[in-house]
Amino acid sequence: MKAARYYGPGKIVVEDIPEPTAERSQIKIKVAWNGICGTDLHCFLMRFPKSPTPSNPNEISGETLPVTIGHEFSGTIVALGEDVDVERYRVGDAVVVEPVFSCLKSSCEYCTAGTHNLCPLVNCIGIGGFGGGLAEYIAVNQSQVHLLPANVSLEVGAMIEPLAVAWYAVKRSKYVSGCRTLVVGAGPIGLLTLAAIKAIDPSGTVFVSEPAALRRTLATKQRATMVINPLEDDVWARISESTSGKGVDIVFDAAGVQASMDVGLKCLRPRGSLIVVASWETPPKVDMNTVLIKELVITATNTYSGIHPELLDAVAAGKFHHLDELITKKILLKDVVEEGIKTLLSEKGSQVKVLVSPAS
Amino acid sequence: MKAARYYGPGKIVVEDIPEPTAERSQIKIKVAWNGICGTDLHCFLMRFPKSPTPSNPNEISGETLPVTIGHEFSGTIVALGEDVDVERYRVGDAVVVEPVFSCLKSSCEYCTAGTHNLCPLVNCIGIGGFGGGLAEYIAVNQSQVHLLPANVSLEVGAMIEPLAVAWYAVKRSKYVSGCRTLVVGAGPIGLLTLAAIKAIDPSGTVFVSEPAALRRTLATKQRATMVINPLEDDVWARISESTSGKGVDIVFDAAGVQASMDVGLKCLRPRGSLIVVASWETPPKVDMNTVLIKELVITATNTYSGIHPELLDAVAAGKFHHLDELITKKILLKDVVEEGIKTLLSEKGSQVKVLVSPAS
Repeated sequence: MKAARYYGPGKIVVEDIPEPTAERSQIKIKVAWNGICGTDLHCFLMRFPKSPTPSNPNEISGETLPVTIGHEFSGTIVALGEDVDVERYRVGDAVVVEPVFSCLKSSCEYCTAGTHNLCPLVNCIGIGGFGGGLAEYIAVNQSQVHLLPANVSLEVGAMIEPLAVAWYAVKRSKYVSGCRTLVVGAGPIGLLTLAAIKAIDPSGTVFVSEPAALRRTLATKQRATMVINPLEDDVWARISESTSGKGVDIVFDAAGVQASMDVGLKCLRPRGSLIVVASWETPPKVDMNTVLIKELVITATNTYSGIHPELLDAVAAGKFHHLDELITKKILLKDVVEEGIKTLLSEKGSQVKVLVSPAS
Repeated sequence: MKAARYYGPGKIVVEDIPEPTAERSQIKIKVAWNGICGTDLHCFLMRFPKSPTPSNPNEISGETLPVTIGHEFSGTIVALGEDVDVERYRVGDAVVVEPVFSCLKSSCEYCTAGTHNLCPLVNCIGIGGFGGGLAEYIAVNQSQVHLLPANVSLEVGAMIEPLAVAWYAVKRSKYVSGCRTLVVGAGPIGLLTLAAIKAIDPSGTVFVSEPAALRRTLATKQRATMVINPLEDDVWARISESTSGKGVDIVFDAAGVQASMDVGLKCLRPRGSLIVVASWETPPKVDMNTVLIKELVITATNTYSGIHPELLDAVAAGKFHHLDELITKKILLKDVVEEGIKTLLSEKGSQVKVLVSPAS
């Protein structure tokens, strides 16, 4: 079968590899769509700490480079291993995969507590091994396979993984109905964070700061209360006049740059929280005296754990609107580097989610 | 009377000013001892944001420079204003002052909620006006005057204010019995934070990192579990071997420098908290990817509010040991600049708390 294989920074090759089989408790999935994630771009540009290297194979998968990439994907079941729960899974079912994997040892306090994402060895299908979504087929342990609700398309299914990142961030932020929030950056994670807030609290006040016009338009469609272009407007001035100078309760930093940290701290009310849902290329300088004066909280969320069932219930219940509008491009696997990764790197602001079909 | 008057960076002058009188609900106090605080040093070195200036008088006191300085002080009552509660306060009583003041307006959500320290106009006696502890006398509203327990000396009384900073930080940190903590920096606030943890949980595991020998000795006397010299030892290596690689639950950063932020984030277990109890001369670079991977919390505490009664009860109950050992020098008011401020600036590591007697 065809698969996009990651050999290291700058080198992703679509090549033929053997088709996987569904062993024991594994489910074999024919991939329908795989979204390209910021982490994939990061891996393309530079070495990612969670990628294996020839001298450091992944501690859990045992794999080294090359690995198949892609971790945001949907598909249909084509085969079940002998130990799979046949009451729950059937050939032909539409599914999504929760790709995070961890050591699962009984001695790991994080895995045993259900916080797999904090396991020191935590990694991800499509990064650390076990195949990836940028391939025609993948075999995945049934514990990581979730049935896609009947009223959700496979395209939207491919966005469940980043939506889980956003949903988990909103849940961990202690958001309660009536909170005022600011989302900084309306890329895929920022827009999905906005969507998650509005799914939980349709009347919630959500400000969005984003320089790219297309992304601002999509933020408006995702029901943002006010969308601000930080290149033209003073974000704090706009929020201050809308909140009688009080500021927001929670900032979601979905940009991960110096300017997002700075504006986030500025716009928070005393004892407000800034939740980082972005990885950082360079560490920001943090104005700790502002943190001190307002007793702010800075924290971050790392992927998710244990929230796929409630998220899929919310999606099935229609709590999200027009997620398909966030898909700005669909391409074929053979074009993943030129039309996918390189396009996202060069035209970031005019794209949101690019989906790849591994159909040959 | 004699008072140390602050004219701006580099200029503190001991001069004669009129003695205050106890108006209405004010209590007139003859100051016994006033400790020199890091904030006083900061004001001496550079403009402090909360200091008034000739063009920006303090919004609450209405005062401009010069102001009398000093906010960590104890003394005895010498006169009561006509509206003072005479059942509670009597001439001759030993007292300490809670110097933080705020707008107290009914429209201020922070003052009305009892979180005066978050009031946008929050300030402090000895910085923003209303006199200061580096004077022979001061008149203070009775709401800010606390009776010193009979078994506590006036010297230790002068350390109740910084001890309140430490006590509040430990309370806000959500410390519970059995937590493992690291205190970075064993200056006055670091040592008092250690003392507060041990007062709350005598068997608590507290690591202390401090380069200065005298301060390490005092940390040992204050019952630290392990005291580490970061110039000679790898702090994380020592903590890792003592905690089976788990790290600590809470870090108190009482240093406020790049190295303290770096080592604090490194030593925290997943979902641990770093609590800043120091002001910063320059904003640190924060390794946000470590914050993300471990879902750490970075926060800070701003002075205190509402905790003096419980703290004074704990001091009266003997929960603190040998606080007097933290007083490394006692001087007279006339020598406050040369023997106090300049000594602390030049011999920081060989001093902890310098007390000043305004007795003439």
